[in-house]
Amino acid sequence: RIMRPDDANVAGNVHGGTILKMIEEAGAIISTRHCNSQAGEPCVAALARVERTDFLSPVCIGEVANVSAEITYTSRHSVEVQVNVMSENILTGAKKVTNKATLWYVPLSLKNVNKVLEVPPIQYARKEQEDEGKKRYEEQKLDRLETKQRNGDVIFPIINPEPHTVGYSQSSLIHLVGPSDCTLLGFVHGGVTMKLMDEVAGIVAARHCKTNIVTASVDAINFHEKIKKGSVITISGRMTFTSNKSMEIEVFVDADPFVDEPRERYRAVSAFFTYVSLSKEGKPLPVPQLLTETEDEKRRFDEGKGRYLQTKAKRQAQEQQAARQ
Amino acid sequence: RIMRPDDANVAGNVHGGTILKMIEEAGAIISTRHCNSQAGEPCVAALARVERTDFLSPVCIGEVANVSAEITYTSRHSVEVQVNVMSENILTGAKKVTNKATLWYVPLSLKNVNKVLEVPPIQYARKEQEDEGKKRYEEQKLDRLETKQRNGDVIFPIINPEPHTVGYSQSSLIHLVGPSDCTLLGFVHGGVTMKLMDEVAGIVAARHCKTNIVTASVDAINFHEKIKKGSVITISGRMTFTSNKSMEIEVFVDADPFVDEPRERYRAVSAFFTYVSLSKEGKPLPVPQLLTETEDEKRRFDEGKGRYLQTKAKRQAQEQQAARQ
Amino acid sequence: RIMRPDDANVAGNVHGGTILKMIEEAGAIISTRHCNSQAGEPCVAALARVERTDFLSPVCIGEVANVSAEITYTSRHSVEVQVNVMSENILTGAKKVTNKATLWYVPLSLKNVNKVLEVPPIQYARKEQEDEGKKRYEEQKLDRLETKQRNGDVIFPIINPEPHTVGYSQSSLIHLVGPSDCTLLGFVHGGVTMKLMDEVAGIVAARHCKTNIVTASVDAINFHEKIKKGSVITISGRMTFTSNKSMEIEVFVDADPFVDEPRERYRAVSAFFTYVSLSKEGKPLPVPQLLTETEDEKRRFDEGKGRYLQTKAKRQAQEQQAARQ
Repeated sequence: RIMRPDDANVAGNVHGGTILKMIEEAGAIISTRHCNSQAGEPCVAALARVERTDFLSPVCIGEVANVSAEITYTSRHSVEVQVNVMSENILTGAKKVTNKATLWYVPLSLKNVNKVLEVPPIQYARKEQEDEGKKRYEEQKLDRLETKQRNGDVIFPIINPEPHTVGYSQSSLIHLVGPSDCTLLGFVHGGVTMKLMDEVAGIVAARHCKTNIVTASVDAINFHEKIKKGSVITISGRMTFTSNKSMEIEVFVDADPFVDEPRERYRAVSAFFTYVSLSKEGKPLPVPQLLTETEDEKRRFDEGKGRYLQTKAKRQAQEQQAARQ
Repeated sequence: RIMRPDDANVAGNVHGGTILKMIEEAGAIISTRHCNSQAGEPCVAALARVERTDFLSPVCIGEVANVSAEITYTSRHSVEVQVNVMSENILTGAKKVTNKATLWYVPLSLKNVNKVLEVPPIQYARKEQEDEGKKRYEEQKLDRLETKQRNGDVIFPIINPEPHTVGYSQSSLIHLVGPSDCTLLGFVHGGVTMKLMDEVAGIVAARHCKTNIVTASVDAINFHEKIKKGSVITISGRMTFTSNKSMEIEVFVDADPFVDEPRERYRAVSAFFTYVSLSKEGKPLPVPQLLTETEDEKRRFDEGKGRYLQTKAKRQAQEQQAARQ
Repeated sequence: RIMRPDDANVAGNVHGGTILKMIEEAGAIISTRHCNSQAGEPCVAALARVERTDFLSPVCIGEVANVSAEITYTSRHSVEVQVNVMSENILTGAKKVTNKATLWYVPLSLKNVNKVLEVPPIQYARKEQEDEGKKRYEEQKLDRLETKQRNGDVIFPIINPEPHTVGYSQSSLIHLVGPSDCTLLGFVHGGVTMKLMDEVAGIVAARHCKTNIVTASVDAINFHEKIKKGSVITISGRMTFTSNKSMEIEVFVDADPFVDEPRERYRAVSAFFTYVSLSKEGKPLPVPQLLTETEDEKRRFDEGKGRYLQTKAKRQAQEQQAARQ
């Protein structure tokens, strides 16, 4: 679809969150279609996880985003979908790859939302495809268990914080979940949640460096708990790490299903977003270093540095491999 | 994309206007891309006309609408686009044709919005395709001239009207044109206008028969004048004709570009919408007859009857032809 | 949240209605949460009244609006909420107070929408806080009774009106109430109604003075009657008074619940909005005087003048008191 002014920031770059929402919608359509392709209980595919994804080039207002999706692996209870986004300038005809994302969905019964149904298996062109898919499946399963334990943290407000500290840029946004945010099952679309997370992360990044900022990448996101229509969700973001030209922001989503079934507030999702700062000409700018004060902040900074170095090493390895081929 | 609660009326049927907006967006993308496919002045394709279109079957919340578009004819300064909409129930896999629409676009220069550029010619598989396209082009050109003259009418308000009279159901809506309603040139997307027109027509129809109503068809719509960002547009609708099971509503769009360049209010678009009334089970219901009071109302009723009988005759001829083949 | 292009008028100033909608959403969340904080029947807090509120400074596209809410008083069946809005320019770090609003909510049972539940009492830090709250409670109760009687007026259309008369700028808007406009109970959010009222009032003001206009204040608004999903609402506005640099516009909301339960059209809300006209540099401009023609228009002008002088006197008294302290 054509990118509109409301999809973009003041510099005209489309929000990463808008792209993430489109990706998730495409993934939900193709996996729901697949899971209902054989006679049996009707179901809706719910997003369980998005793998780490890089934003390779910014999209601008007036460009057309083309989204294509393909199922690449099925386990007994889950579907792996690969989604590609190309942006096209229909005036010049120029096309660029914007995004490649991998998403995992789980089919939930339309009659009993707590029942996970079986997924019809797909046919693989080659045996290796199945083996590689299985390996990815095992890896993500492990990672989901790990993050489930990490999820207990809370963001405390800080009064009169100094510039460039963690407390200075941290931000929260509250959203009341309406009908258009939800699937047929009455739970929030994963894409809606990711769009709000990107909005908060963007505010944190802009507060820190006071320039035009764009989403560079999103770490793997796990959706542990569903969020029901009528809930109030609080999305909080804080900066965890800065390199010379990038910022890492941790975002938490907490849900409060306060009307229907007064249950305790719970952590629904958490993730790391990476942002870069751009000049008016679209060139990357240096980022002010994050000032860490408490022990926890220092620890999180070091952990963020670890993730940063790991990603960098992985990318270099890929580039070398590509050069060799 | 997936149809959401906000796209539909209370009975869960998606508004014809939502479908028209999607059709126009697809048409604008493909024709803008085509008109920029050769080196030259960059341009944006502006909607000039939509041919009469029937809504063959209603779309429901949760279904996916698949839109495909194809360029079927080019004249020197205009592009004909054929857009097909299929609705797909991703739970059952059932697909239905919802809509087939033909739209005409004109390329306007991005630098000088009043300059119409030349359209790169397309290649036809067979000579007859070009000839048939040319015939359609000549026909629509004639029709556009005719409606341009009809456009002078105004809807006068009536105080304390009786049920089932024209004055009882007539309705107006004002809308302030925002950035997201507009193309890169700063003029309202044709699809946005059509969505608002369908909204007003639907309110007129619902006020008349007080039941659940759906769009059955839209007559050809000509876009004579552009509408600028920041304008206030008034969309007015009045019922012109009722058959046993359908209602015809005339809709006018008037624009008021009052902020930037205080110009007189002008008529931008007008069209006829046909609605049917549906029971809870989705069966067509009888429609209360429209009570006409003035000479003008009687004349418009007769003209509406003429259009109704003509369409009916055309459809029967097509069905007989289809049966013979 | 970040203010987007669609939240603002052509000059980049965010609509007062967008702010009012955010304020109401925050109020609804905090009061619904409070009313469900003790075991008992689940309920949703419905807006009963908004006290007069001033827009202290305009908000621009790209700024972040921070909304905070606090419960300041509870009676047996109602909750008083104080909401503060700060706008923050995240590039410069500059913050301004935009708005301070006081809202009254009433808890309605989720099972039986006509049943008003009891409100859990709050604890006051000092006895005086409770006494002042009680005084505010009694005052607003009285005022609500008064406006209930005023509500019978209707706006009649005028044909070919002269510039600067009441008939020239009066405007109506119809809106079909969709799912996203409604609470879990299926009734329109008070904030949605206020946003539409501000939209009509803004169009009236812009038609009168043909410049860029912004909301300066809103008088107390009482919500006497609920509006159900699927209703058509007509929002009408007419200018009642002009001072040298401000315009007062009276806005009515009428509801037509015509589909489910064909009931007579009824007046749901009414209120006074005050607007000012701004130059391109953001300075207040003189406003053309309103030309009153009928006796009713002259009477309403005088009443508007009374409200204007009263507000002016109150503000001056406050400023003197502030200067003395």
